[in-house]
Amino acid sequence: MIKAGIIGATGYAGGELVRILTGHKNVEIKWYGSRSYIDKKYAEVYQNMFQIVDDKCMDDNMEALADQVDVIFTATPQGLCASLVNEEILSKVKIIDLSADFRIKDVATYEAWYKIQHPTSQFIPEAVYGLCEINREAVKKARLVANPGCYPTCSTLSIYPLLKEGLIDPNTIIIDAKSGTSGAGRGAKVDNLYCEVNENIKAYGVANHRHTPEIEEQLSYAAGQPVLINFTPHLVPMNRGILITAYASLKKEVSYEEVKAAYDKYYAEEKFVRVLDKDVCPQTKWVEGSNYVDVNFKLDPRTRRVIMMGAMDNLVKGAAGQAVQNMNLMFGLKESEGLELVPMFP
Amino acid sequence: MIKAGIIGATGYAGGELVRILTGHKNVEIKWYGSRSYIDKKYAEVYQNMFQIVDDKCMDDNMEALADQVDVIFTATPQGLCASLVNEEILSKVKIIDLSADFRIKDVATYEAWYKIQHPTSQFIPEAVYGLCEINREAVKKARLVANPGCYPTCSTLSIYPLLKEGLIDPNTIIIDAKSGTSGAGRGAKVDNLYCEVNENIKAYGVANHRHTPEIEEQLSYAAGQPVLINFTPHLVPMNRGILITAYASLKKEVSYEEVKAAYDKYYAEEKFVRVLDKDVCPQTKWVEGSNYVDVNFKLDPRTRRVIMMGAMDNLVKGAAGQAVQNMNLMFGLKESEGLELVPMFP
Amino acid sequence: MIKAGIIGATGYAGGELVRILTGHKNVEIKWYGSRSYIDKKYAEVYQNMFQIVDDKCMDDNMEALADQVDVIFTATPQGLCASLVNEEILSKVKIIDLSADFRIKDVATYEAWYKIQHPTSQFIPEAVYGLCEINREAVKKARLVANPGCYPTCSTLSIYPLLKEGLIDPNTIIIDAKSGTSGAGRGAKVDNLYCEVNENIKAYGVANHRHTPEIEEQLSYAAGQPVLINFTPHLVPMNRGILITAYASLKKEVSYEEVKAAYDKYYAEEKFVRVLDKDVCPQTKWVEGSNYVDVNFKLDPRTRRVIMMGAMDNLVKGAAGQAVQNMNLMFGLKESEGLELVPMFP
Amino acid sequence: MIKAGIIGATGYAGGELVRILTGHKNVEIKWYGSRSYIDKKYAEVYQNMFQIVDDKCMDDNMEALADQVDVIFTATPQGLCASLVNEEILSKVKIIDLSADFRIKDVATYEAWYKIQHPTSQFIPEAVYGLCEINREAVKKARLVANPGCYPTCSTLSIYPLLKEGLIDPNTIIIDAKSGTSGAGRGAKVDNLYCEVNENIKAYGVANHRHTPEIEEQLSYAAGQPVLINFTPHLVPMNRGILITAYASLKKEVSYEEVKAAYDKYYAEEKFVRVLDKDVCPQTKWVEGSNYVDVNFKLDPRTRRVIMMGAMDNLVKGAAGQAVQNMNLMFGLKESEGLELVPMFP
Repeated sequence: MIKAGIIGATGYAGGELVRILTGHKNVEIKWYGSRSYIDKKYAEVYQNMFQIVDDKCMDDNMEALADQVDVIFTATPQGLCASLVNEEILSKVKIIDLSADFRIKDVATYEAWYKIQHPTSQFIPEAVYGLCEINREAVKKARLVANPGCYPTCSTLSIYPLLKEGLIDPNTIIIDAKSGTSGAGRGAKVDNLYCEVNENIKAYGVANHRHTPEIEEQLSYAAGQPVLINFTPHLVPMNRGILITAYASLKKEVSYEEVKAAYDKYYAEEKFVRVLDKDVCPQTKWVEGSNYVDVNFKLDPRTRRVIMMGAMDNLVKGAAGQAVQNMNLMFGLKESEGLELVPMFP
Repeated sequence: MIKAGIIGATGYAGGELVRILTGHKNVEIKWYGSRSYIDKKYAEVYQNMFQIVDDKCMDDNMEALADQVDVIFTATPQGLCASLVNEEILSKVKIIDLSADFRIKDVATYEAWYKIQHPTSQFIPEAVYGLCEINREAVKKARLVANPGCYPTCSTLSIYPLLKEGLIDPNTIIIDAKSGTSGAGRGAKVDNLYCEVNENIKAYGVANHRHTPEIEEQLSYAAGQPVLINFTPHLVPMNRGILITAYASLKKEVSYEEVKAAYDKYYAEEKFVRVLDKDVCPQTKWVEGSNYVDVNFKLDPRTRRVIMMGAMDNLVKGAAGQAVQNMNLMFGLKESEGLELVPMFP
Repeated sequence: MIKAGIIGATGYAGGELVRILTGHKNVEIKWYGSRSYIDKKYAEVYQNMFQIVDDKCMDDNMEALADQVDVIFTATPQGLCASLVNEEILSKVKIIDLSADFRIKDVATYEAWYKIQHPTSQFIPEAVYGLCEINREAVKKARLVANPGCYPTCSTLSIYPLLKEGLIDPNTIIIDAKSGTSGAGRGAKVDNLYCEVNENIKAYGVANHRHTPEIEEQLSYAAGQPVLINFTPHLVPMNRGILITAYASLKKEVSYEEVKAAYDKYYAEEKFVRVLDKDVCPQTKWVEGSNYVDVNFKLDPRTRRVIMMGAMDNLVKGAAGQAVQNMNLMFGLKESEGLELVPMFP
Repeated sequence: MIKAGIIGATGYAGGELVRILTGHKNVEIKWYGSRSYIDKKYAEVYQNMFQIVDDKCMDDNMEALADQVDVIFTATPQGLCASLVNEEILSKVKIIDLSADFRIKDVATYEAWYKIQHPTSQFIPEAVYGLCEINREAVKKARLVANPGCYPTCSTLSIYPLLKEGLIDPNTIIIDAKSGTSGAGRGAKVDNLYCEVNENIKAYGVANHRHTPEIEEQLSYAAGQPVLINFTPHLVPMNRGILITAYASLKKEVSYEEVKAAYDKYYAEEKFVRVLDKDVCPQTKWVEGSNYVDVNFKLDPRTRRVIMMGAMDNLVKGAAGQAVQNMNLMFGLKESEGLELVPMFP
């Protein structure tokens, strides 16, 4: 039985970790960390866990935690995990960080976009970017995994095969993303009130959203050259789900079959990436509650562009599910253990 | 491995049966019946099942089906199951009917409220009303189970202990119910279009909803006398969930502890009925996707009434989940097998 | 031109007052009071008013305001209006208070339910309860109007005729109410976040909601005897709208026509109360954005009860619209001036 | 008093025409045409109009109608208006067609994208594309106005100034659009059911949506050269509202002020186009129920692109409101008559 601790267990991503790990037959949660609710019963914070979880919330003492568990998940604001981690802790437990602290290899880029000084940048080189489908072997050996951001997961997986196969011009990529509101977290802000979000849609973080450099780094690896993109997220009146619609110019004329083959080359064996049938557009509802990413594309011969689409549940494959997928790899379990979640419809 | 057939697999309740049975380790679905989509791949009708279910939809031939499976679920319009069932079929397979055909013992009452002549009323006496928490032993021995309606399940479980213990006056019961829109089915009707339901709430079926006699029958058993109620359902802009708010006059002055003890007497050992802590009101979101019913109550000394509340997922405990719970009982499996679904929040 | 000041202009009710008064040809808003946003442009707080309102938010100095305007609307938390008003101010301007401070005639009842000591209870006797359809003549002469609460407006108007005509037993009234989320205000609370409200329904304030004594007082006037009720509000995932479903026992057997005649007697000449056609249930969407209350009823001969239903927009007839209707009466304008708002559908 | 007839009065756009014209002091609706509801009271189809509109629905006899009214609005499926119109009718009444029949000047393009043969293409040359802000003078003199599509209105207005001023490369334009569900009409289709749309987002009509050539034609006029674009609409779980997010490469380095000046040049005097303040992103909720289009932009110096954004109510400025704006121009009324609708929030 793997003993797990969660720092930040009362945010939405933390809550989803609890939901998934509760159904994971090889894991036992030993620590529900939550600065805001210390000593409160977890099931009073998330009433859905009533009679399922009996524990109380604890503080975020990573030192103490490292002695009691095998793996620590940090689902915390930017900068917190980086401020807690140290060599001693890393020698004792595996860490899966759901924040952005260890995702970006270039510390200057991280500091510029996040406006935070990185206190433990010495661990960045060893941290593995936990996009399992791409970095599987490295994840297996990691002691510190940087769990990818929600937008970067969906964007990278949707675009990756075409960049790897050299089908699209890396300088023409535009990603228009749409997210449900759970991505904004559980903080009490007027902007996230029901009446402000409902019956409304807006772009935000236009040309300066923090996930931009993370996506660019991953696409640069795929392209084998530096890639700059436009990335525009939108807030959609729904709880869960991310849809990305990405545009790029084709390098040359290609057929549907050629592009399909590119996707199949990378994903035919991947359980959690579903390349949909021709002309079927991904919908967030079809993956809700599950670890799937549904991807597809459409060629536009008129403009010589390709439209790439991806849908996933931001709290599962975009956060907690992928974190568990990483954990499974790190501990030598079946990669899909605890993640055989059938999407819920409607 | 139990072989299961579903007649009506492409309605919302049928789809939920598929979702749940797909995760049930003792069951294999052999037949996806759907009059509307014969020969179409099931995963094209419910794209969430892409790469999970490969089968095509079949017709609703119960005779043929009875030779191939161990259990048949009928998630079909009123009257269909009653028109298909016969002694030979019942001698071969167990049937769990999610429609109302065998729920009401008095055939005249059924025919009056449903405006249908019952073609096989000879099977009504043996049919067991599949409210597991109340009729567990009978269900285990049944070959034909009438799976309870969504409103009746939530209403009966919320009120049952107080009637059994004689705490409330059976002639004063008023049930005000609220349901998500999946309860209205997947038929293409203007009334159920997004723009008609969204940002809207209304009562419907006022004083004549078909679930009224079903609830009355169950409450009458509990009260040991005939019970007439007012039952008013409302359509709420959400996909899933039923909340019932029930009112009744107290027979005498009682304390919180006495009423709580009544609930605990019947539900303390029940996995799927959660009696919430004092002053915590049930919310549909806390049970979404799960087989739980959350119940609680509040005493009003000013009016000498008690307000009883219950929340559940209409497609799970209110339909497919309860059907699987019945199946587990009928086949001697662990009652919660395949139903260890943790509620999804948010 | 009537000069108006609004204290609490940046809450949802205040914002709706601005929307309605902006379209009122006899009114000019001179003061946008808002403690939270002093000196900020109003149109930055409510971007819908961009290029429509150019003013900045001011403080809530009622003394200063009384010298500059003809009417003051207070759309503020409980207790604030009562703490600001005095004889000098009342001698200069008319006040329409959208809070509960002057709604309840019995100060002990107010203080018990609101847990506030009333600082200026000497003005309670002269304050007129501004339910225009019932207190029209008194409103015309008032200098201080207590604008009714949202639930009390909808509840009272739905039940009033049957109590006045003695058709129902006053001791049997149960009101089950459902409200959109704007009724909860614009404060930043976790409970009102999009993800907490969406896809969810719950009761709240069960057996102790503050609108209870207000409704009881109005129904007592109608009944000519003290009335105690059960009142249970629910939070519904929609922005606007209140639906009430009320139950009462009939005193004697009555026909549809007799009950319809009772409603018509009081409302046939009322522009803003629409008695719907037989069997048509009120829906909140049909009155959205307008000052209408749609009411109807259904007799249940089985239980000898009547179900009374009412739907209205909580921010219009339930707050700002009714306040403007009161203002029109107080200033001798056409009662519907500025309120000819056609409901928006969908 | 202008007498108006509406063919297609019971679709969502037709219903919005009724709402707006009901509040228009110079117009009287004489004909509520609706093939589906002939002889039914209009207020039974749209209950919000109860006690406001007393008329019944009529057929769609344009010949008969032309003798009775001054202006005919056709809010009908593609091809219908074109099949009804003739020289005699046009000599008697002005026609404002909300369908696409007369929007595209090149009949071959129309027929290719709409898969309909155009029966009366002889009227295409004289039809004026009713985008009032751009074709104001031509509209004033028109007898046949092609009311623009919803997406084309929002897209064209958002991009127009930058193309006219030569700031962007016309070959790089990508429009990612998001629409509420009322744009899909009131037809009873499974795809538009509440449970299918709610908690979901998807792209549709990718690379082949019919509004593409309409947008391209208008942008080509602005650019003075043929323009091909990518246009991808998405279905968003909300009733009303369109948001477009458009991307284009800048021809040269420009400052915020230069681009702002371009918008101001065309829109500073336009009542219904609001150029928002720097860094404020348009939101559909801020224009709901009104005739406004809110536009803004953001420069991205990293990629040398500009992101252009526009938000509007698809049923108002995207359909009925713009139709009334056109009518006002055609009849010499104040352009904003009946359209002084303040956006409703929340």
